Amino acid sequence: MTDQTSANPKNANALWGGRFEAGPSAIMEEINASIGFDKRLYAQDIQGSKAHCAMLVKQNIIPAEDGEKIIEGLERILQEIESGKFTFSSALEDIHMNVESRLRELIGPAAGRLHTGRSRNDQVATDFKLWVRDVALNDLEAGLSGLQEALIGQAEKNIDTVMPGFTHLQAAQPVTFGHHMLAYVEMFGRDRSRVADCKVRMNENPLGSAALAGTPYPIDRHLTAATLGFDRPAANSLDAVSDRDFALEYLNTASITAMHLSRLAEEMVIWCSAQFKFIGMSDKFSTGSSIMPQKRNPDAAELIRSKIGRIVGCYNSLMLSMKGLPLAYSKDMQEDKEPVFFAHDHLGLCVAAMTGMVADMKVFADNMRKAAGAGYTTATDLADWLVSELGMPFRDAHHVVGATVKLAETKGCDLDQLPLEDLQKIEPKITDAVFKVLTVDASVAARKSFGGTSPERVREAVASAKERFLK
Amino acid sequence: MTDQTSANPKNANALWGGRFEAGPSAIMEEINASIGFDKRLYAQDIQGSKAHCAMLVKQNIIPAEDGEKIIEGLERILQEIESGKFTFSSALEDIHMNVESRLRELIGPAAGRLHTGRSRNDQVATDFKLWVRDVALNDLEAGLSGLQEALIGQAEKNIDTVMPGFTHLQAAQPVTFGHHMLAYVEMFGRDRSRVADCKVRMNENPLGSAALAGTPYPIDRHLTAATLGFDRPAANSLDAVSDRDFALEYLNTASITAMHLSRLAEEMVIWCSAQFKFIGMSDKFSTGSSIMPQKRNPDAAELIRSKIGRIVGCYNSLMLSMKGLPLAYSKDMQEDKEPVFFAHDHLGLCVAAMTGMVADMKVFADNMRKAAGAGYTTATDLADWLVSELGMPFRDAHHVVGATVKLAETKGCDLDQLPLEDLQKIEPKITDAVFKVLTVDASVAARKSFGGTSPERVREAVASAKERFLK
Amino acid sequence: MTDQTSANPKNANALWGGRFEAGPSAIMEEINASIGFDKRLYAQDIQGSKAHCAMLVKQNIIPAEDGEKIIEGLERILQEIESGKFTFSSALEDIHMNVESRLRELIGPAAGRLHTGRSRNDQVATDFKLWVRDVALNDLEAGLSGLQEALIGQAEKNIDTVMPGFTHLQAAQPVTFGHHMLAYVEMFGRDRSRVADCKVRMNENPLGSAALAGTPYPIDRHLTAATLGFDRPAANSLDAVSDRDFALEYLNTASITAMHLSRLAEEMVIWCSAQFKFIGMSDKFSTGSSIMPQKRNPDAAELIRSKIGRIVGCYNSLMLSMKGLPLAYSKDMQEDKEPVFFAHDHLGLCVAAMTGMVADMKVFADNMRKAAGAGYTTATDLADWLVSELGMPFRDAHHVVGATVKLAETKGCDLDQLPLEDLQKIEPKITDAVFKVLTVDASVAARKSFGGTSPERVREAVASAKERFLK
Amino acid sequence: MTDQTSANPKNANALWGGRFEAGPSAIMEEINASIGFDKRLYAQDIQGSKAHCAMLVKQNIIPAEDGEKIIEGLERILQEIESGKFTFSSALEDIHMNVESRLRELIGPAAGRLHTGRSRNDQVATDFKLWVRDVALNDLEAGLSGLQEALIGQAEKNIDTVMPGFTHLQAAQPVTFGHHMLAYVEMFGRDRSRVADCKVRMNENPLGSAALAGTPYPIDRHLTAATLGFDRPAANSLDAVSDRDFALEYLNTASITAMHLSRLAEEMVIWCSAQFKFIGMSDKFSTGSSIMPQKRNPDAAELIRSKIGRIVGCYNSLMLSMKGLPLAYSKDMQEDKEPVFFAHDHLGLCVAAMTGMVADMKVFADNMRKAAGAGYTTATDLADWLVSELGMPFRDAHHVVGATVKLAETKGCDLDQLPLEDLQKIEPKITDAVFKVLTVDASVAARKSFGGTSPERVREAVASAKERFLK
Repeated sequence: MTDQTSANPKNANALWGGRFEAGPSAIMEEINASIGFDKRLYAQDIQGSKAHCAMLVKQNIIPAEDGEKIIEGLERILQEIESGKFTFSSALEDIHMNVESRLRELIGPAAGRLHTGRSRNDQVATDFKLWVRDVALNDLEAGLSGLQEALIGQAEKNIDTVMPGFTHLQAAQPVTFGHHMLAYVEMFGRDRSRVADCKVRMNENPLGSAALAGTPYPIDRHLTAATLGFDRPAANSLDAVSDRDFALEYLNTASITAMHLSRLAEEMVIWCSAQFKFIGMSDKFSTGSSIMPQKRNPDAAELIRSKIGRIVGCYNSLMLSMKGLPLAYSKDMQEDKEPVFFAHDHLGLCVAAMTGMVADMKVFADNMRKAAGAGYTTATDLADWLVSELGMPFRDAHHVVGATVKLAETKGCDLDQLPLEDLQKIEPKITDAVFKVLTVDASVAARKSFGGTSPERVREAVASAKERFLK
Repeated sequence: MTDQTSANPKNANALWGGRFEAGPSAIMEEINASIGFDKRLYAQDIQGSKAHCAMLVKQNIIPAEDGEKIIEGLERILQEIESGKFTFSSALEDIHMNVESRLRELIGPAAGRLHTGRSRNDQVATDFKLWVRDVALNDLEAGLSGLQEALIGQAEKNIDTVMPGFTHLQAAQPVTFGHHMLAYVEMFGRDRSRVADCKVRMNENPLGSAALAGTPYPIDRHLTAATLGFDRPAANSLDAVSDRDFALEYLNTASITAMHLSRLAEEMVIWCSAQFKFIGMSDKFSTGSSIMPQKRNPDAAELIRSKIGRIVGCYNSLMLSMKGLPLAYSKDMQEDKEPVFFAHDHLGLCVAAMTGMVADMKVFADNMRKAAGAGYTTATDLADWLVSELGMPFRDAHHVVGATVKLAETKGCDLDQLPLEDLQKIEPKITDAVFKVLTVDASVAARKSFGGTSPERVREAVASAKERFLK
Repeated sequence: MTDQTSANPKNANALWGGRFEAGPSAIMEEINASIGFDKRLYAQDIQGSKAHCAMLVKQNIIPAEDGEKIIEGLERILQEIESGKFTFSSALEDIHMNVESRLRELIGPAAGRLHTGRSRNDQVATDFKLWVRDVALNDLEAGLSGLQEALIGQAEKNIDTVMPGFTHLQAAQPVTFGHHMLAYVEMFGRDRSRVADCKVRMNENPLGSAALAGTPYPIDRHLTAATLGFDRPAANSLDAVSDRDFALEYLNTASITAMHLSRLAEEMVIWCSAQFKFIGMSDKFSTGSSIMPQKRNPDAAELIRSKIGRIVGCYNSLMLSMKGLPLAYSKDMQEDKEPVFFAHDHLGLCVAAMTGMVADMKVFADNMRKAAGAGYTTATDLADWLVSELGMPFRDAHHVVGATVKLAETKGCDLDQLPLEDLQKIEPKITDAVFKVLTVDASVAARKSFGGTSPERVREAVASAKERFLK
Repeated sequence: MTDQTSANPKNANALWGGRFEAGPSAIMEEINASIGFDKRLYAQDIQGSKAHCAMLVKQNIIPAEDGEKIIEGLERILQEIESGKFTFSSALEDIHMNVESRLRELIGPAAGRLHTGRSRNDQVATDFKLWVRDVALNDLEAGLSGLQEALIGQAEKNIDTVMPGFTHLQAAQPVTFGHHMLAYVEMFGRDRSRVADCKVRMNENPLGSAALAGTPYPIDRHLTAATLGFDRPAANSLDAVSDRDFALEYLNTASITAMHLSRLAEEMVIWCSAQFKFIGMSDKFSTGSSIMPQKRNPDAAELIRSKIGRIVGCYNSLMLSMKGLPLAYSKDMQEDKEPVFFAHDHLGLCVAAMTGMVADMKVFADNMRKAAGAGYTTATDLADWLVSELGMPFRDAHHVVGATVKLAETKGCDLDQLPLEDLQKIEPKITDAVFKVLTVDASVAARKSFGGTSPERVREAVASAKERFLK
């Protein structure tokens, strides 16, 4: 994870004090330098520079031999960074200056030609966009797809597993556990669709917007767009260097995903309480106690439930930073990257852990079924029978059912355990055909409307989900 | 506007006290009833019920004559509400019960058949989705399109109007005001694209999901989907009644729009300060003072800048409400509508006011031009000339320019007012051809790269914007 | 409640459209006027004006006879408003102008003297501060005190009621329900303490700061401070008209309170599930179903859990509005009042409803006790006995307990049902004295450390809570 | 700074991918372990353990010789950590287990006695409280005090420096720069007062609450409270381990401070624009450009303005995490520390940088004075003269002034440059005594009301501020 605290906690704690003694230059370096976090953009920075350089050569803006040196130098720097040999310098402020400075060391004055027709403003926008597109969005897409696979797997194993469907955490009607799992498949499917939309919308190339106004050099922004996988160059240079919509849109997408995860996590915490015991959490994702070895605390589920705070906090953070910023670039915008990196890292952990938890959890089908049958959850089925078999208006049927439930409650039995004569005292037209709709299996089987919980429909829904999400 | 406080402020202030005396039933009615705000869904509620009813008849689930009565009754209720004759009752809790209860008054027991195969849970999801799609998203689309039209109009009038392009609120390079206006056209264009994506993604029909599990009646959810303009029925009944993604996605879209508006509003406030005087705000959107009649306070711009608070606050509100909710329906979700209504109303005002302000503002081109020329904003042009004409490496050119600017500063003149011999003392190879790049007009004209600020490009960009956004 | 939507929903829905047709003046009036919400400040506005007027007379700044007329006029306006006879005008923008204009109608030119030595900027700060202090903070204080009383009442009735103490929603150790209730008494006690601090800190008088710079008139700000119950005049006129800290601090206090309420509400929802059945929610605060008459949905608890969204949303709203505002007054600050009014109204309902729910809930002590004994919750007591009676090191004791719990699990019995010989096989030094610590009652009774859950301590804690919070 | 990304960015980027291959145990360790950030609590953890140990000895709960060994071991661990020799292990999860495990290595089984009568739940609450109190709050107090000193210093140097007082970024009345600086001294003074209140309220000792229920050992929580500087033991063990109010209250305090900083930062950015040129930013806190050496970009001010996003984001993060958590401890609460650490680190940088910027900035008094006189900013003084010297009602005076300003505008001169006869044409009773109130110096000097901007008052205010804030 990326949010490590300083290696030596003492220094960390002493920062405030030390800062005042350290003098202004140390403070300024500390607040101003971004290399501490933007070094994560190194691959994108080099990728963008290579594309820019190749275009400059092609357009005869810089000599081909200089271009070759630059490309070779950049590739060497990439190697140095990936092999851990590169020394990042905070005095050089950011990843762009760190790379540029090293390039000059490696190839001399030719390095200076790389910056022709661009500036740090369009460079940083390009690097960050590439990272959001190729790392944040792609990772999220892959992670969600894996999570859907785990959920569909559980759904498939539990097409017939009956559990109570809740409203207000009160059992309302029986559903199948497979159906419940597929509800989350839909949610994460929408999340993936948001990821895809975000990727399309953001896919415009800022490179070549220069500081803010464009450039007099005969650059070819369509070419760099193509090289970098952008659909087209951004249409307005001022907007291109000032725009951080893509980061906010990613953070919103991540926030909604985190919200979905928090709901599933909450259900898991409740389901694995002793009172519910619907599922058993794998040892891998829970913690025990030496003193109460039977106890499994759902730590991972709780952490996932909690992490929504971080993700939405990151959205708020960037929104506040962007509020009221005049065009074009202001340094305020340097605060754009960390919230995105954080959201990505924390959300990544959550998706991975949830995938493992879903795949590994034990389903206690007997407990689910028992709970599904308690609380007269087939009362609606009785009403539906009265309406469709006896032609009773809906509201009248409701009154009959209310009376029936009260009677069952008094007798301390289930609806299908009431003698027919008792039912007929309430409504003489009732026949013993009614009993076949009063079991939880019958209830579930009957809900065959499109999108409904009957095993027949859930089987189709599993197949459809595989088709829609796992191909 | 919708967030009116109670007509009698005394009562409003006394609520806390009164509440405790009022007893539990009054408190419960007050916290529980949603009719105070969800009556805004009346048209969608009736539309959904009509579609459901027609389907029930078509599927032979209810008799055709009952269907006719229901449709007639619903149409009469619509008329009653729109003509202000309908009495809403807080005891009937919400818009759904208010309409249903009135329907029973009008047509008797047949009204009871309408609720066959649906429940309040899918009904409220359907109504709210229809409202977000047909009111919130459509209004935002239309409003943004009008705002873009106003911006493009100003851009077209100011293709050649030179102003300073700022970074860090410091003049950096000259740009044209037309180019600056078009930057916002891009932003609001992305907002419209988010609106469109949201509309497509949400366009799945929850109706017929019933309480949470589907229904045993042979309903046709594809038919109601088609009638209501949905692309398809929602695939999972549990998800369909639990999903509020569409509301969050709308609120995020609204938040990003509000952020864009806050940036333009901030610029307007700065631009109409006495120190900048780049624009004059129309009397229609500013306020004066009887004592200083020359003063125009940019009240509307400040309010627009501030309103981002409300919109993002609404996003946070719903996100917090949804965090950790177990499936399927919980009453927590009743807190979904007001944030959306609020965001819509406040944002609507902002977009309308901004459209008027942009259309009406006076552009003080002379002040802009004067500011554009101050601060050696053509220094970059000098550097670019040295690089492209003299073949000087970029970094060397920087040093020459630095020395030149310092000299001009010492002499208290502009760059193009320095004698050639002075320039040649710094760099002997400079010729008097250099002077043609040192004016703000030349600087602007030179930035012909795609997306750049040259009037040539801006003219094309205006045409392209009309094509992309106003057709 | 105050956030009612427009009486005629059609108009409300048509706002966006209507707005564009309505023309700029209608839009400007709608976005600019605050009378729709700031009329709630009417009593504070009149109170402040009366204090200011009396001071002006005392300082001989205005004639006594004019002062008398002003006071009489203001009192009459107060009456008119409270009796519902006052007509508020949106064209007059805000409560201050509405009152001032009516005063001029009533008493003629003398009304003009009231504004001597003050301006709308200090007037609005004064009114709003008085409202926050005397309405928002006082109501919250009173509401929380009532809620504590209800909680202490339940605690007192349940000093000996044993329930499982949870960590991770897993039973960990037995506690008493009285102890659990008192945990919330502490939370709401801290909230009251925050209210009190906020009231002290904000209690500085802005009146007489005039527009922003003070005034040349020989006003006496100490006198108006005393009259209005402020501790002193605000020390800096620029700060006095620009400061909204008190509103943010109130909103933070309200947010933390809402967070506490959300925790209790969540517990109630879980406790009244069929699986837990620890409490029964009163009919007054839950809703039923005609079809399942035994079902009680905890609607009020869910709404309270959800309302934290609104309150924290209001905090975010004002924080975003205040970000980056230059001194002194900007119109952005007009967006300060509604978030505070909203938070107050929504939180008021929550506190009132929670108070009723706590007072009315049925405690199912048998279910609690049964759950308290399940899951080997006295394992810690066994460990403590081994440590203190046998002098065993803590970690060794842990291993003995772990083995014992495993054995009991295998045998399917509770810890105190294991035969002594079984225990001695694990640890020979164990005697039958151990059994007296293995019951839930013994466990609870033993936890006598200060702040612990033993009935002895809880009885003292109830007495102390009454002393600290209800006097 | 503490939020460094991983040293090897490649690994960081590869986390998502790597995670899935890594298998569940690696994922669980990564999401579950807190040692990466909670090692910052090492000093507090050892401090708390020492206090607990000493108490256990005093109460004869553990032998004195074991106590001595424990103390010595803990002190050695402290040394090891501070000298960088301690190896933190992620497998040991958190700082508490890391310390405990090392203690066992150092002193053997006696280490096991330290955990008598406490648990990780009360231990973590104690450690975190000590850190918030002794580090976060103390640092903020010290930082704010230094910032006030810098502001008072500037105020003292600028008691007579006249500048325009703005409303809506439009000059309204002249004020002094000293007065303006003191407005911020008041704001940061309130922030310090919030810090102090927070410290008092949170100062209750959780230690000895054990897991959640208290303990059977005869511990003395008053003694550990005294040793650790707490005012008293927390009154309820369930609350003590579940409470994170102190963290939220710190984050709110930090957020309001950040809001104040954002306002001053915004003013600085505007003031150092070429159009305003009220101040010059020191080289130490701005950045230049090799190509435009005269340009100073106010980077530090912009970063400070932006950082409010992080701080408020942290507040939201923790609020979302805490929403709806059942008592007592849930793992969700592990997400409490990082937001607090972040807010502390980022805010610390902001306060330090702002202190330096205020102390170092150059004040361009001539530019300020010139701007103060433009725009008829003494119009109010004319009105006040008409009222107090000629006894004219306020509203009539307004009309005279309005006409006068219009005349001056037509003539293109200032108010005090209008000939007396022109003034008398508007209002015959005006005498030449009026001219003495129409200069900016006279205007400022006249505003002698308490808290007003006259140099006389500002001089007193500086003295009072030193007395109130710097002693």
